[in-house]
Amino acid sequence: MNVAILGVGTVGSSVVKILKKNKELIKARSGVEINPVIGFVRDLSKKRDVDIELSDDINSILKRDDIDAYVELMGGVDRPYKIVSEILKQEKPVVTANKAMLAYHRYALQNLAKNTPFGFEASVAGGIPIIKALKEGLSANKIEKIVGILNGTSNYILTNMMQNGVNFDEALTKAQNLGYAESDPSFDVDGFDAAHKLLILSSIAYSVHGDPEDILVKGIRKISSEDIFFANEFEYVIKLLAISKIEDKKVELRVHPAFINKDNILAKVDGVMNAVSVYGDALKHSMYYGPGAGGDATASAVVADLIDIAKGNKSPMLGYNTTLQNVKLLSQNDIKTKYYLRVRVEDKKGVLATIANVMSENRISIDSFLQKPRLKDEKYTTLFFTTHTSLEADIKKVIEILENMKFVLNRPFMIRIES
Amino acid sequence: MNVAILGVGTVGSSVVKILKKNKELIKARSGVEINPVIGFVRDLSKKRDVDIELSDDINSILKRDDIDAYVELMGGVDRPYKIVSEILKQEKPVVTANKAMLAYHRYALQNLAKNTPFGFEASVAGGIPIIKALKEGLSANKIEKIVGILNGTSNYILTNMMQNGVNFDEALTKAQNLGYAESDPSFDVDGFDAAHKLLILSSIAYSVHGDPEDILVKGIRKISSEDIFFANEFEYVIKLLAISKIEDKKVELRVHPAFINKDNILAKVDGVMNAVSVYGDALKHSMYYGPGAGGDATASAVVADLIDIAKGNKSPMLGYNTTLQNVKLLSQNDIKTKYYLRVRVEDKKGVLATIANVMSENRISIDSFLQKPRLKDEKYTTLFFTTHTSLEADIKKVIEILENMKFVLNRPFMIRIES
Repeated sequence: MNVAILGVGTVGSSVVKILKKNKELIKARSGVEINPVIGFVRDLSKKRDVDIELSDDINSILKRDDIDAYVELMGGVDRPYKIVSEILKQEKPVVTANKAMLAYHRYALQNLAKNTPFGFEASVAGGIPIIKALKEGLSANKIEKIVGILNGTSNYILTNMMQNGVNFDEALTKAQNLGYAESDPSFDVDGFDAAHKLLILSSIAYSVHGDPEDILVKGIRKISSEDIFFANEFEYVIKLLAISKIEDKKVELRVHPAFINKDNILAKVDGVMNAVSVYGDALKHSMYYGPGAGGDATASAVVADLIDIAKGNKSPMLGYNTTLQNVKLLSQNDIKTKYYLRVRVEDKKGVLATIANVMSENRISIDSFLQKPRLKDEKYTTLFFTTHTSLEADIKKVIEILENMKFVLNRPFMIRIES
Repeated sequence: MNVAILGVGTVGSSVVKILKKNKELIKARSGVEINPVIGFVRDLSKKRDVDIELSDDINSILKRDDIDAYVELMGGVDRPYKIVSEILKQEKPVVTANKAMLAYHRYALQNLAKNTPFGFEASVAGGIPIIKALKEGLSANKIEKIVGILNGTSNYILTNMMQNGVNFDEALTKAQNLGYAESDPSFDVDGFDAAHKLLILSSIAYSVHGDPEDILVKGIRKISSEDIFFANEFEYVIKLLAISKIEDKKVELRVHPAFINKDNILAKVDGVMNAVSVYGDALKHSMYYGPGAGGDATASAVVADLIDIAKGNKSPMLGYNTTLQNVKLLSQNDIKTKYYLRVRVEDKKGVLATIANVMSENRISIDSFLQKPRLKDEKYTTLFFTTHTSLEADIKKVIEILENMKFVLNRPFMIRIES
């Protein structure tokens, strides 16, 4: 089986390396030799440590008769979508790691891939075989809920903040110095990367439609040392979670920092590692853990997809032969969960009573409350609340009301609690 | 696709239930309807809560032309092996949860299943799709090491001992009362169940041959409250681990209680849950977690195998089309690891020096040492040692020498340390 690698960066080079290094093993497992024969690059003059013929002429590569499968690792959305569509129209198999392309075009691609293998294991959680687990391993189950730590950069930063007491900016700088975060970290720390991945997993789980813009996405920039303090006091860990649930054919999708209990197994997923908890009606809770990024880890998934193609294994791209469910996205305002609220206020009589009243009038019931003794000469103090399960619309209303009260210093900061 | 269920106990009933309850979902995923049409039972008079025709005539079931796949859930070794062999000779697909049959006959079955799908996901770690992960998800990787918590009964007992301070007998009784342990718990708590599962996983990972009797198997009966005390002091957790490693084409297989560091993610696998850590050359460390037993969890794997068969997906049974490696089992005496030693001795001058000498003469180097203050009127005291990496043969020699020393009360107790 001859393979063309479109995009020969870190992952593409690793794919070539693994196909050569583990050639015998791969042949024994797949039954055929899988040979990387050509790589597409934009800039031929750039030096690359990869043992494969390179070309900057995408059209000639797409026309070659001797290519049996294409690996798309170019990044971007519309350009790779156009190229991958062309390949699928030729009924040639495609393997991709491109989560953004899938987040926007997965159903269009599924239509094109009706008779053609299309692998995208590498698009979510690097080399962890979570797509295969959802499509095949758990295929007997109605999936009820997915909770993932899907962004290694954010998890590295949060782990550092929790364990070493550094603030967000310091942790981000450290992550950038170690190559775990981009110079513009927005895609990772603001939750969009995890949102793309959550959409992909949820499409396999529930056949849900929707674009990244439709879902609730919050990042980790505003988490303060006071939130970390509270988490430690109350036996919580803060993680950037990607959560999807189905109830009454409504799918709830959200990405946000969350408090989780210290004894939740996801609380032990530290540093750049990823993990996905899946809840099904038969198996109940299972969890998948591993490196979510890196050349070799991602290439591990790309090559596994190629081996599946070589074996002739075919599964419908998103797991379904026929559309089963007519599910809809739950409106963000209808999401129900528990909340943590940090409110910076003037330390004077009546403040707590007023806040408690605002909550009660908006159907928010307080579960726990903490006020630290005020420092001498300090005019302000911080109040920490956690609530019982409440409606997103109600907590938003409360935050708005509180923000406009004279004795409240800044906009109250909210973190959701996942139990 | 018509399916016969051979053995309609807890798991068999769950298989029927899931096939019926999730019928539409399964059809959407597999493309066909999967119908359980007949169940084989030994005793027709026994009342069963299952909605399927039952028969006690195995031969007539095996001869039916309208059966497209068989699910073997009878238990035992030789009888099911004979029956499964007959089915495979007819080139009809088989799905089984029978770990003992596979531990002894997996290569013979693989030969018979050359052209016939053979699913056994349910044989290891219940519904966790670990067989699929090893055969397909991680197929790009040279597997280097597997570390599993594969016996839920033992893990439940050890978790209870660690967290609630009860001793082995109390924890076992509680497990039996809750239905987590058999009245004769030997198969679970003495390590044989985990050994069967380890052999299956290791055959997929390294094509290793061998019977359960060939490998190092130790149970958890002799773990005392003093070992728990030491574990807590030194930030360890005790788990019954199933470990396999490959080095220089030698495969090391062992099942034994082990100290693992509290921050190892396996240390968080509590109660009846199972988990498997897999180390590969590309993906490095990944881990798979979930319920290791129970009707629905195990049936989840059985039905997933049936769906794969319905899709027409074929993989070589143990993952290889051709034999790749000529690997051998490492002799038990050549295993190298770190050790913990608990030695009950008369509390008198010269004892520690003598023991230290014995160790040193046998190439055992001490890493840490602990002696608790002796209680008043107590003639004996307990010494706790941990060692640097040593040879199994050497530590066995040391234990033998110490056991025969006058000032040593009982045979010293050893637990391996997995780092």
